[in-house]
This record gives sequence, structure tokens and C-alpha cells, in this order.
Amino acid sequence: MIYADNAATTKLCKEAYDAMKTYLLDEYGNASQPYFFAKPAKKALKQARETIASCIGADPEEIYFTSGGTESDNWVIKASLFFDKEKNEIITSRIEHHAILNSCSTVQPLGIPVTYLSVDSTGIIHPTELERCVSNRTSLVSIMYGNNEIGTIEPIKELAEIAHTHGALFHTDAVQAVGHVPINVYDLNVDLLSASAHKFNGPKGIGFLYIKKGVTIHPYANGGSQERGNRAGTENVAGIVGMAAALQKNTTQIEEGQRRLKVLEETLVSYLKQAGLDFIRNGAENHLPGNVSLSFRGADGEMLLHRLDLKGICISTGSACDSVNTQVSHVIKAIDVPKEYAEGTIRITFGADNTEDDVNQIANAIIQVMLESK
Amino acid sequence: MIYADNAATTKLCKEAYDAMKTYLLDEYGNASQPYFFAKPAKKALKQARETIASCIGADPEEIYFTSGGTESDNWVIKASLFFDKEKNEIITSRIEHHAILNSCSTVQPLGIPVTYLSVDSTGIIHPTELERCVSNRTSLVSIMYGNNEIGTIEPIKELAEIAHTHGALFHTDAVQAVGHVPINVYDLNVDLLSASAHKFNGPKGIGFLYIKKGVTIHPYANGGSQERGNRAGTENVAGIVGMAAALQKNTTQIEEGQRRLKVLEETLVSYLKQAGLDFIRNGAENHLPGNVSLSFRGADGEMLLHRLDLKGICISTGSACDSVNTQVSHVIKAIDVPKEYAEGTIRITFGADNTEDDVNQIANAIIQVMLESK
Repeated sequence: MIYADNAATTKLCKEAYDAMKTYLLDEYGNASQPYFFAKPAKKALKQARETIASCIGADPEEIYFTSGGTESDNWVIKASLFFDKEKNEIITSRIEHHAILNSCSTVQPLGIPVTYLSVDSTGIIHPTELERCVSNRTSLVSIMYGNNEIGTIEPIKELAEIAHTHGALFHTDAVQAVGHVPINVYDLNVDLLSASAHKFNGPKGIGFLYIKKGVTIHPYANGGSQERGNRAGTENVAGIVGMAAALQKNTTQIEEGQRRLKVLEETLVSYLKQAGLDFIRNGAENHLPGNVSLSFRGADGEMLLHRLDLKGICISTGSACDSVNTQVSHVIKAIDVPKEYAEGTIRITFGADNTEDDVNQIANAIIQVMLESK
Repeated sequence: MIYADNAATTKLCKEAYDAMKTYLLDEYGNASQPYFFAKPAKKALKQARETIASCIGADPEEIYFTSGGTESDNWVIKASLFFDKEKNEIITSRIEHHAILNSCSTVQPLGIPVTYLSVDSTGIIHPTELERCVSNRTSLVSIMYGNNEIGTIEPIKELAEIAHTHGALFHTDAVQAVGHVPINVYDLNVDLLSASAHKFNGPKGIGFLYIKKGVTIHPYANGGSQERGNRAGTENVAGIVGMAAALQKNTTQIEEGQRRLKVLEETLVSYLKQAGLDFIRNGAENHLPGNVSLSFRGADGEMLLHRLDLKGICISTGSACDSVNTQVSHVIKAIDVPKEYAEGTIRITFGADNTEDDVNQIANAIIQVMLESK
């Protein structure tokens, strides 16, 4: 089996599993209890928070554990319900993940105006487009760091600066980027950042929201006083230490990983070109490492996926969260992929375990399927 | 170390860990993807849903996975924001978990009226009290199955019936009860029920919400189409299979567990009585198995906890989620424990691993500490 759908999820790394095991089996104390037995769990949370913070240039007290990227995104958007009515407009983009888009559709009927920015044909949200829409009524600008379908990396620093000029908070959904590209929240000057462990070889069901010191957003989960009263619920200690171990591992080898994945991407694309296939590569020059979004002329992405699956190759048509929906995705629509190519879109996302041999096999399989279907 | 704080959290059972291991290490596919590699994860989710449903007399499609009891409770209360404005009043009780109480405080300023029912001195919410407050404007009645501090089990079936007579939904926070007392949602006729895996020897960070077929509440987490569009986010497959394995194990030995824990409770109380200690046992005759809430005259619960901790015994003063708060808890206040006893309250909660020898040691330790502090 060749797994090349690392944007959907990644294999848990050994370091993460080893870290989790102790907290699953032995140190099961409730980290919020005051007795001695809870100390190892409490200490593990503290260390995990420090590790995660250091990986993104944050302070430990700026990290809030959540159940994943979707929760982090929902938290940010739904907190807008508690903003001042005079300044409660949200600006986001047409190519965000559905965790953002569907949260926006939820708060909109409750009185929160939402503006969706357009993107260019490579998926870039131009700062001029934000300038055109932002005003002093804007409370929050939420733009993803890197797109989950086409990989395009957005000009976050410039966009954040524009938001701040108008007194708005800036959030970035960095679920696809954290652990894959160097991120420093201080340099980017974002106020809020979402991440999910299982996208960087950590466990499923855990993630975090970075909230810049001094920024206040309404708590998402109400209940106990966990996460300094901002996100209630008994801490998932095993998940949290697994996330920290995975992020630390990925971060220490981030540049090497980027270089390695770039080679794999380019090898794949050049094989397909050499075979004379008619396709467009989607996304921008500056994109998430390992992401190869291709639209084949006259092809059917679903069919391609299934034919590759029969050959033991896992790839995707769009985002995993949207896999029941077989329409052309909102991202492919937003970047205006020509109709004759749009339906033939597949997403190959290489990860830590992929090899040159995987690339050869994927290329051969695609070429074979495309030639057979002619 | 003697662990007697099973209402705070429980030790993960071997069966749960074994079930999780495969989905942590090998079958890491994203359960929402269509390819072959995702099938084992998808199948595991299906089986876990069936197992959990069968343990509470539900249908599999009535089970919605969440990140835990707090999320399930938040979901139910915050869904009230989307109720018809003519019928949006919530009724709950003064002794609910803070996941309910603090969620209510969050929706109240957004236009949702909330009524808090009083309890008697044993913590029971009398059906007459609900009758007095319910009206055709009531949208939701939320009453916990068993109280996390004093163990009192509420007359859920009668309360649900009253709610239904007025066209209101009935929710029960059964976080402390599921896996410990036999629960059949069909017999109880509740519309919504919250549960959390780590309270029944499953992993932390996973739980579920039962939503009766035909009942519609607004989705909590927006994003992908997971959980039939009602709770977005990549499924925590390992957590879910661990939860199912733990619940199945606990459910098969539920009556035996109840009997065993009752003996432990009674042994403890009789030892303390024999030693001539002046205390009140809080809660009702019908209570959660293993719960012993005691208020010692003139004592300091915090001091007692710490002195027992030094002897290697883990117990609690109140709920773990509230452990930073050293005041007399809202539950102890609601049941009107006399002032001279209230501050001397501790909670001992026995679980699957406790023995008669643990009880002897706990009793001796309490007696020693109480005599020393005279």
C-alpha cells in the first residue's frame, strides 16, 4: 500500500505513541486534581504546552488545547457572537476549510455579517482584496495559512497587518501548515492560530488554538476551569503529550522534510509531463510541502481515485471531510479551473514516509489509468 | 497508592487499550475517506457505534461521538440558541455539573431564559418542583442522571415525562452513570443523554451524545460531514474504539459491580461510625455505586484531602473540574449541609480496582487524621 493522502491524516509517529503509552496505561490521574498521583499528568501537560509553544514561537500560556482543528476553528468564529454589535463583521475567504465556512454560515443568521474574499487563479488572497473589504466594523479576519486542497500558502503577515490597521483580530487556520513549514506566531503577528495533531503525525482527536497574550475571546466549552477557564473538559493527557512529541519531531526536521518533499513533488509532475498527459497543476509556487493538486483534462477524479485505490494507492479528490460530496470542490471552483479539467482533479499529498519509489509507482499508475480510459 | 477518586477519572481498562492500539499504530486511515485503506477505521467506527448503542438500549444512528461529557453538555445547551424564540426556555437544576451551569450562563445573556430547580436535602429534584416551573414556553429540561459530588440519582423517567407533557425536550447528563448503573434510553424516554469515556475506564478526550431519532438539535461543531453532519472533525478512531470496549466490559459486569461497590461503601461508613466520628453522609439512598460523600463536623475538607494524600490515598473534596475552587461547592450549598459540617466535606468514589483492604486503609487514615486534628 502506498499512502499519499497526508493532508487527510498522517501516520502516528513512534515518538508520539511512546509518549502517549505512559499516560494511557499508568499515569491516568485527572490533571486537575490536587493530589500527588495527579502530578505526573499535570507536569506532562505543562511540558507539552512548553514544547508546542516553542515550536511556533509562542509562550506556553498562549496555547489552549482543543479536540482538533475543527474545534479550534469553530471556537474562533463562534466567539464572534460575543463581540460588540458595532464591530462584529467577519472577513474570511472563499477557499477556507468547511470548519470555517460552515461556522460562518452558523453565526450569520445570528447577526454576524460575513464577507468572503476572492482568490486569484493560484488560490492567493491578495492583500489589496482585503484592503477593499476591511473596515472599522471588522472584528475578525480569518484566512488559512495553507490551503488543504491546492496547498497555496497565503501572505499571512501582510494580511494580519491590514486587519490590525483596522483594529480587527487576525486568525489563521494553520491546520495544514503547523509541523510542515516553519511558523513563528510572533513574526507573523497573528492573534489566533488553529492546529490539529493528526495532520503532523500526532494522534487524532487533539489540537490547539494559539491565543495571543492580551487577546480575549469568549470561552468555547464551558464547565470546569481547565485551560484557565477557556476550554472546559478533563484534559486528554495522552493525546496532548502525543501531539507535543509529534510536533517536536516534525519541527526539528522541518527544512529537511520540505526539501525532500519538493523533490518528490517535482519528480511526480515531471513523469506525468513526460508521458504527455494533459493536466493543470493547481496552487501557487509557494505551497505546502508535498501537496500536488492536479486537474486532468476530460478525466473523472472519482474514477481516478478508485482506479488508483485498486492498485493500492491512497490519494484524494478533495478534502477528506468532504469526501461524500462528489461535486467539484469550492476551492477548485474559486480558482476557476477550466470546466474540462475541473472534474478530473485529484490531490496527492506526500508525507514523512513516502519514497522516490512511491512516486514512480504513483506516476506509472496514473499514466496507465489515463491511457486506459482514453 | 490507593486510588478512590473514580468520579474524577478512572484507570483505562486493558480491553480498551488493546482495542486502541491497532488504530493508533496501524489502521490510521481517515475514516471519512473512500479508499480501501480507510475501511478498517470506518468499520471500527460502525462497530463501536453499535456496541455503545446496545449498552444503553439505543439505535446506532442515535449515537454522536464528541470529545467528552463537557462537549456533549455544551452542545445541548448551546443548541437552544437556535430554538424558536417563543419556546426557548431552559429548566435545569442547581446541582448540575458546571458543563451545564456555565453553558446556561453563556446562553442566558443571548436571550435564553434559564430556571434552576431546587433540590431536597438528599439532592433529589422532585417532579413536583419541575411541574411548578415548566410551561409551554419550556424548550429543554436538563437534569443530571446522578450527581458527581453526592451521587444522588434523580427520578429521570418521571421528570422526562413531565417535560414531554409540555412539549419540551429532555436531556440528562449521565456522565457519572453510564457504565455504572443499567441505563436504557428507551425505557427512560429521554431525548438526549451525555456520556464520557474516561468515567467508565475508557480513554480521556472522547464521549458521546445520544440524540433520539426524530429529535433535531443544531449541530455543535461545523465543518466536514462527520457524524452525519452534526459533529464535524476527523474521527478519533482510537478513542472511539477504546470507549466502546470499556463500556462493553463495564456493562457486562454492571450488577456485580454495583453489589461489590455497595459493600465497600457500607464497610467504610460503618468503620467511621464505629470510631465515633461526627459526620453526615450526603446524598440519597438511591445513589451512584461507590460514591461516599461525607461532611465531618468542624473539619476542613482540603486539609483532610492533603493529609490523606500524604498517606498515599487519593480522594476529592468536590468535583475535579472545580478543584482550584476551595469554597464549599454549589452542590453542598444546595442540599443545605449545616455550616459546621459543610467545610469538612470529602468525596470518596470507589471503582473497579478497589478492594476491602483499600477500604480498611482509607477508614484508618481518616480516623487517624480526624483524631490527630482534634
